Amino acid sequence: MPELRKDPIVGRWVIISVERGKRPSDFASPSHKRKVSGFCPFCPGNEYTTPEEIFAVRQNGTEPNSPGWSLRVVPNKFPALRIEGELEKTAEGIFDKMSGIGAHEVIIETPDHLGSLSNIPRRDVENVLWAYYYRINDLKRDPRLKYVLVFKNEGEAAGASLEHTHSQLIALPIVPKLVREEINSSRKYYDMKERCIFCDLIAQEREDARRVVCENENYIAIAPFAPRAPFETWILPKKHQSSFKPPDGSFSLLAEVLQRVLKQLDKLLDIPPYNYILHTSPFTDEENEYYHWHIEIMPKLTKIAGFEWGTGFYINPTPPEVAAKYMREVEI
Amino acid sequence: MPELRKDPIVGRWVIISVERGKRPSDFASPSHKRKVSGFCPFCPGNEYTTPEEIFAVRQNGTEPNSPGWSLRVVPNKFPALRIEGELEKTAEGIFDKMSGIGAHEVIIETPDHLGSLSNIPRRDVENVLWAYYYRINDLKRDPRLKYVLVFKNEGEAAGASLEHTHSQLIALPIVPKLVREEINSSRKYYDMKERCIFCDLIAQEREDARRVVCENENYIAIAPFAPRAPFETWILPKKHQSSFKPPDGSFSLLAEVLQRVLKQLDKLLDIPPYNYILHTSPFTDEENEYYHWHIEIMPKLTKIAGFEWGTGFYINPTPPEVAAKYMREVEI
Repeated sequence: MPELRKDPIVGRWVIISVERGKRPSDFASPSHKRKVSGFCPFCPGNEYTTPEEIFAVRQNGTEPNSPGWSLRVVPNKFPALRIEGELEKTAEGIFDKMSGIGAHEVIIETPDHLGSLSNIPRRDVENVLWAYYYRINDLKRDPRLKYVLVFKNEGEAAGASLEHTHSQLIALPIVPKLVREEINSSRKYYDMKERCIFCDLIAQEREDARRVVCENENYIAIAPFAPRAPFETWILPKKHQSSFKPPDGSFSLLAEVLQRVLKQLDKLLDIPPYNYILHTSPFTDEENEYYHWHIEIMPKLTKIAGFEWGTGFYINPTPPEVAAKYMREVEI
Repeated sequence: MPELRKDPIVGRWVIISVERGKRPSDFASPSHKRKVSGFCPFCPGNEYTTPEEIFAVRQNGTEPNSPGWSLRVVPNKFPALRIEGELEKTAEGIFDKMSGIGAHEVIIETPDHLGSLSNIPRRDVENVLWAYYYRINDLKRDPRLKYVLVFKNEGEAAGASLEHTHSQLIALPIVPKLVREEINSSRKYYDMKERCIFCDLIAQEREDARRVVCENENYIAIAPFAPRAPFETWILPKKHQSSFKPPDGSFSLLAEVLQRVLKQLDKLLDIPPYNYILHTSPFTDEENEYYHWHIEIMPKLTKIAGFEWGTGFYINPTPPEVAAKYMREVEI
């Protein structure tokens, strides 16, 4: 019998279609092993082809926009939103619109064209997390902006248009609907119980253990109870923390868990395309008792089609208990 | 300057990225012209390979589950939900779940393997709409079910697993989140204004004319103000109608508009993959003043990636005013 499950945070239902019960090898995912090929604007020596860098981790003495970096942040050459201009909000009859003010940046995670977050040195993964942190905190100073979403599209099927590994961030003049829903719902829970729903969820998952993928001293990775996609995995700090930041001045333990999960996915699903997103509290409410930042990783194994478009429901052929077991047992 | 636009019904924001301003020919959509190839379980003569038919339009004197039909409805062989069993609702700590009760049916729209909704006789399109209507009204009698979503995945990129043209329906034991959001929001609007938001929207679009794709006596097709995808098109009855039904005992005029829009998309975008969905009022509230049934058609031209997953925002490179103009001007 299939099962309907509800995500306790946003109230999204999913159908866990156990009878279709797919194992990792059943997914014909378009594996995206990188190869050396053609001109790459993100490779060292080609810095002149990107907009000027905003932030970089560089060897001492090297010039901005020249080789010698291990990480670069640059504006997106084809930005979805623009930093210049007034934030104007206008009506058009019953419709509402505003000017497309914001920022759209690219985090080039390593100079190595063949590198992936799963196989570059842990130190470089830490740098990526520091870059997210610094950029969010810099953009926060712009009063027109309300939220920064950090995300990663890995592989063409997951929406990446360039092969060289990179993440992106988009700073927005409004808090997006999905984040607003998570926040409203966790605030409601807090009002009822005086506890953070994510903290309760972590406690229950650790007690239950079936959906735990891995954990270290500070972070836990779980297969969520109502995953939208097979092998969806969330990473959360074990102690309550409303906004993304390094708890003891280090991202080392987060980099460890993130890299471990990505390695597990690569091994189980033959280097699948995936997306991940970082959800943190909005700028105006950074320190609070009810919201808990986290990373959501979703391998791109199934298609979004009419049913999902029409309902907001998802059909998932792999129960999270099964996915978590595969993840725990795979050798990396 | 890009523009942020808000859908007045569900409050979803989209980024209209005018500078990327794509024309129809800029989209490399995987065209899905059908071809005769291999064994097809939906072709006449192969009725024995599907579960037994629930409904059919047949020549007089032909037997169920044999040739002689012009439309068949059969249960999905690999259903996401099952009709047999008890609807049980249970808790698992902070989580909620229920048994996967429901129905999952396939509407085989024509016996012609090479046919598409855009090129089969109009009469056959009318039959498809009648099949939707009859099946919704039959499933309504099951008190465990709260909603039926009719949808169509056309082309592999849009999630179709079989080439032969078909639609599907899934009957659900709950009203899905997205429909609930549309309903709550239109009810709130009605409470404020004593008018249906869709009726107001239609009036404004007809007055403005820039986003009107086509219309006839009873129906209008528009490019919505805040489309998630390039060339997204909605079809609505011009007079208020909360639930999907034939206004004067005929679906002829709806079939005309639907087929016209699909022909326009085929011509402009070289037979693109697409999804469409039918949104109607839930069973428990079929006749009301505030909700207005409609069809949403979305060509599959762009990818859903991390940004969309993380925000519920969409980035659309084609403004609806531009899309509607192309649609109006294409010769079909």
